[in-house]
Amino acid sequence: MGEALTGLKRSCMCCDVNESMIGQEVTVMGWVQRRRDLGQLIFIALRDKTGLVQIAIDGNTAEKDLFAKAETVRSEYVLAVKGLVAAREDGNINPNMKTGKIEIIAKELRILSESETTPFQIEDNITVKDDLRLKYRYLDLRRPSQLKNLVLRHKVVQVMRNFLDKEGFLEIETPVLGKSTPEGARDYLVPSRVHPGNFYGLPQSPQLYKQLLMVSGMDRYYQVAKCFRDEDLRADRQPEFTQVDMELSFVEIEDIMDINERMMQKVFKDLMNVDIKLPLPRMTYAEAMERFGSDKPDVRFGMELKNISDVVAGTDFVVFKSALENGGSVRAINAKGCGSFPRKKIDSLVEFVKTYKAKGLAWIVVNADGTIKSQIAKFFTPEKMQEIVDAMDGQPGDLILICADKDKVVFDSLGALRVELSKMLELTKPDDFAFLWITEFPMLEWDEEENRYVAVHHPFTAPMDEDLDLIDTNPGAVRAKAYDIVLNGYELGGGSIRIHRRDIQKKMFELLGFSDEDAQERFGFLLDAFKYGVPPHGGLAFGLDRIIMLMSNAPSIRDVIAFPKVKDASCPMTDAPGVVDEKQLDELGIAIKETEEATEE
Amino acid sequence: MGEALTGLKRSCMCCDVNESMIGQEVTVMGWVQRRRDLGQLIFIALRDKTGLVQIAIDGNTAEKDLFAKAETVRSEYVLAVKGLVAAREDGNINPNMKTGKIEIIAKELRILSESETTPFQIEDNITVKDDLRLKYRYLDLRRPSQLKNLVLRHKVVQVMRNFLDKEGFLEIETPVLGKSTPEGARDYLVPSRVHPGNFYGLPQSPQLYKQLLMVSGMDRYYQVAKCFRDEDLRADRQPEFTQVDMELSFVEIEDIMDINERMMQKVFKDLMNVDIKLPLPRMTYAEAMERFGSDKPDVRFGMELKNISDVVAGTDFVVFKSALENGGSVRAINAKGCGSFPRKKIDSLVEFVKTYKAKGLAWIVVNADGTIKSQIAKFFTPEKMQEIVDAMDGQPGDLILICADKDKVVFDSLGALRVELSKMLELTKPDDFAFLWITEFPMLEWDEEENRYVAVHHPFTAPMDEDLDLIDTNPGAVRAKAYDIVLNGYELGGGSIRIHRRDIQKKMFELLGFSDEDAQERFGFLLDAFKYGVPPHGGLAFGLDRIIMLMSNAPSIRDVIAFPKVKDASCPMTDAPGVVDEKQLDELGIAIKETEEATEE
Repeated sequence: MGEALTGLKRSCMCCDVNESMIGQEVTVMGWVQRRRDLGQLIFIALRDKTGLVQIAIDGNTAEKDLFAKAETVRSEYVLAVKGLVAAREDGNINPNMKTGKIEIIAKELRILSESETTPFQIEDNITVKDDLRLKYRYLDLRRPSQLKNLVLRHKVVQVMRNFLDKEGFLEIETPVLGKSTPEGARDYLVPSRVHPGNFYGLPQSPQLYKQLLMVSGMDRYYQVAKCFRDEDLRADRQPEFTQVDMELSFVEIEDIMDINERMMQKVFKDLMNVDIKLPLPRMTYAEAMERFGSDKPDVRFGMELKNISDVVAGTDFVVFKSALENGGSVRAINAKGCGSFPRKKIDSLVEFVKTYKAKGLAWIVVNADGTIKSQIAKFFTPEKMQEIVDAMDGQPGDLILICADKDKVVFDSLGALRVELSKMLELTKPDDFAFLWITEFPMLEWDEEENRYVAVHHPFTAPMDEDLDLIDTNPGAVRAKAYDIVLNGYELGGGSIRIHRRDIQKKMFELLGFSDEDAQERFGFLLDAFKYGVPPHGGLAFGLDRIIMLMSNAPSIRDVIAFPKVKDASCPMTDAPGVVDEKQLDELGIAIKETEEATEE
Repeated sequence: MGEALTGLKRSCMCCDVNESMIGQEVTVMGWVQRRRDLGQLIFIALRDKTGLVQIAIDGNTAEKDLFAKAETVRSEYVLAVKGLVAAREDGNINPNMKTGKIEIIAKELRILSESETTPFQIEDNITVKDDLRLKYRYLDLRRPSQLKNLVLRHKVVQVMRNFLDKEGFLEIETPVLGKSTPEGARDYLVPSRVHPGNFYGLPQSPQLYKQLLMVSGMDRYYQVAKCFRDEDLRADRQPEFTQVDMELSFVEIEDIMDINERMMQKVFKDLMNVDIKLPLPRMTYAEAMERFGSDKPDVRFGMELKNISDVVAGTDFVVFKSALENGGSVRAINAKGCGSFPRKKIDSLVEFVKTYKAKGLAWIVVNADGTIKSQIAKFFTPEKMQEIVDAMDGQPGDLILICADKDKVVFDSLGALRVELSKMLELTKPDDFAFLWITEFPMLEWDEEENRYVAVHHPFTAPMDEDLDLIDTNPGAVRAKAYDIVLNGYELGGGSIRIHRRDIQKKMFELLGFSDEDAQERFGFLLDAFKYGVPPHGGLAFGLDRIIMLMSNAPSIRDVIAFPKVKDASCPMTDAPGVVDEKQLDELGIAIKETEEATEE
């Protein structure tokens, strides 16, 4: 059942063994990747977190017991091996292995632990169902790609911490058991035993605490903070996720951008050897929407949106006409060289945009001879069709895709379509990193459902000085001192300069439709704090999981989290969440409501 | 309501201004500590996190507006000041201030934020009720002592992280939303919305996850981990607390001690300039109890316990006699020079030990002339009394304090009494740091209430190899591969080598009275993991809050946590926990039981 380690000391990791150590005695420990028997020779590939090293046991020279023991060794057994480093014979050199020129001739071998056959092989590039991988996550993590992700994550955080430390930031922990403030996503709640009927809320972010730390004079704060959102999960969401969260006093937007882009530059240089040119490009929200239909544009390729409303204005095609009459627009992208797409593929693009609420997609193929094929040709004069093609710089072989609707629908549809096409056409490489800042976000957006304005960023975001006058006259047009950092079509992080004046904060709450009592009940402690000298301040939060996913080119965020949860927010490994003793609920003063699901238990 | 920061950039922190900058223009920002008016001269002490600098506004030379504005400034206003660094006149030099030789002659002054009168002064050494301090924790944190604690905390963690990084540890985050495993303290629970009637448990420690990380081959793991215990709070406990948590594979006890004592040595050298001699002393649990009556002895002073059972054996004093007959012992300490304590003070010591379940305390005063005064003298011959005094090395002026009971009561009472006396007599200095390791803890202790063995450390702690045979014959005598690191009478951290063999783990669960089903239900995923090749492993967890408390000599653990909770686990600043919307509870499928407390809401 396993020999003891007593008296044996590991001298080095598997991959630290190298040619300079030939003739030396080493002790390595790890897992058996595989055993190969060649008559009187046994080879064991031994694995630790650094990689593999070959152990050799020669039946002609090894002690009998040792050879017999080596014959019992199977995959994933845990071994300690003491032996002499030797050069491999020429024919046995493995150039694909870091330790491919040497092997260890075993003198002592201990089986520290045996292993049953694992539910899947401990190798990359194998097909295993996600469910199985996550149920046996501790085995999944033995696979080199998964280990690599966690190592990268460790290093990224370490580089960030040391960078922020040098820049004068204090790492400060804020509470996990906080107050539930139901604005934004749904909170996870924790019933209080001491105060029955009362609940803590797990933080969706340390927002209020970090602002209070600025009020307290901490000047620069950061935290690698666990945050929680009880929302239905999408592929790239987790109920608990990690933010690299920071806040700075006495700064303006440029100061925050400067520090953060230098930090990302350092992370990418130190860990990927990728040079990122600073300052990063800045683009306003308005420009990003106009050109890319997205506030997180992938700028590694063109295929930009063009507004052809003016070109088609006054024509009779009802789809375009009604879009324009309803305050919408007609915009298009030119899929260069895609004119040869079969009709079926074009139809699938039309289907694709329906996910984004577009009612349809008009298309124009520019044939090799310069003639035009289009399902909407019949609604226009040939001259008008040519005018549209010219406006889109249509060349023979191009495919022009047109969307007409409310701006939001047009942007969402064409923005997503553009990205979809880039994948089809393989326009991007994962190791090409295009960062940029998006700025001047709108401060508010109208929520049809709630029939009120809601904050685009959050209720503490400061309006732009230039737009202060608009707050009373046209709040929807006010731009915020908010910014996102975007990489390859993903939002890596975002932040804002905060409101530090009580009068503007109160005005903001009014705009959001909070009564004074309401605001006091939810955020009273922040408003109180603002009475006692608040520095101008602002901050930013990075989504760490997503950064690591992009850096490691992992298919899912789950691949960069040690013990992730699946779509229904459960953990296949531990079976959390689970039922608890009645006694525990009694102590908390809560009861489970009888529902179908609950009575099934 | 506050001027804008626009266009102004801080050039340095307040305390960075020094004599080498005389004649230069600087821009500083911070809070007004105080304003002094001397006719046409206004002095403002401006504070940021580095300390204070003096701003001078001379009515004879400054612009009128500037002087008028300076006259409106009050304590805790937030200012930005641009000005010239000047040497102070000789009479104005303040040797107690880092910036005491210079001042800044203001050229521009902006009031970034005003302040109402704060509920207490922003100064150290003032008397403020704890309640008020914690309600206004953001103001409390402006006090230099509180800021200093958080800065120290930041630095300690940073030193530890860099140390562990160099030693090959990976920082890996483990889930906060985990499985409730009701062994040990009470879990905080989080109701699941997706799985009504099911609950997550917040981790009391990442114990199971870190062991699984070892199974997965991560080799060396650490995490600065938030942990949670829903227990009634004592002065030095918080519902959420921070552990520096680690686990290592392929190690024995000495390897873990070595790394950790080197880490503590580095922390104390780098941050306190204190040299700690390594290796730290090791003391077995048995010796610690015998000599100090405690498994976390303060070894900075003597006053050790002595077992005088043999001396008093066979005498008729019923208290001693019955203690010995019941398997207990008679032990004593010699409070050197305390023979002159007034009777009242001695009586208070008798009262003191009653907290530790002692029924009483016998005392012997050795008078200056060598005669003896004692309330128990009448029960013994003068020769026997002298024999006791001699056994305790009693000299004229000494006070001998004797306790007779079960061993546990005697140890607890005299151990605590010894510490209490050291405080009375001021035997220790806070900047004298005496570390040691306590080893060879018992593996199990009998729980009278539950009528079964419980694990002293936890159910995954390995027994000592020497004691494996005792598991079946005398489990209570088995010592564990467990160790605590102790400083000045406080346990800083503790850990153990874990069981890595399934057969021993199963045996352990049997001893603890878990049925197979029970063990599988609670820890099934760990037992499953142990089928697939487990490395020998062990670890340790430090209580970070307590370390910082001892290093900063803070009176309470609350002083080293940014936003601590009070005794009833509430936060006076945010009023968490609080009531939540009925809708939130509906979504979770739970209801609040009608109790007196709940209906009061």
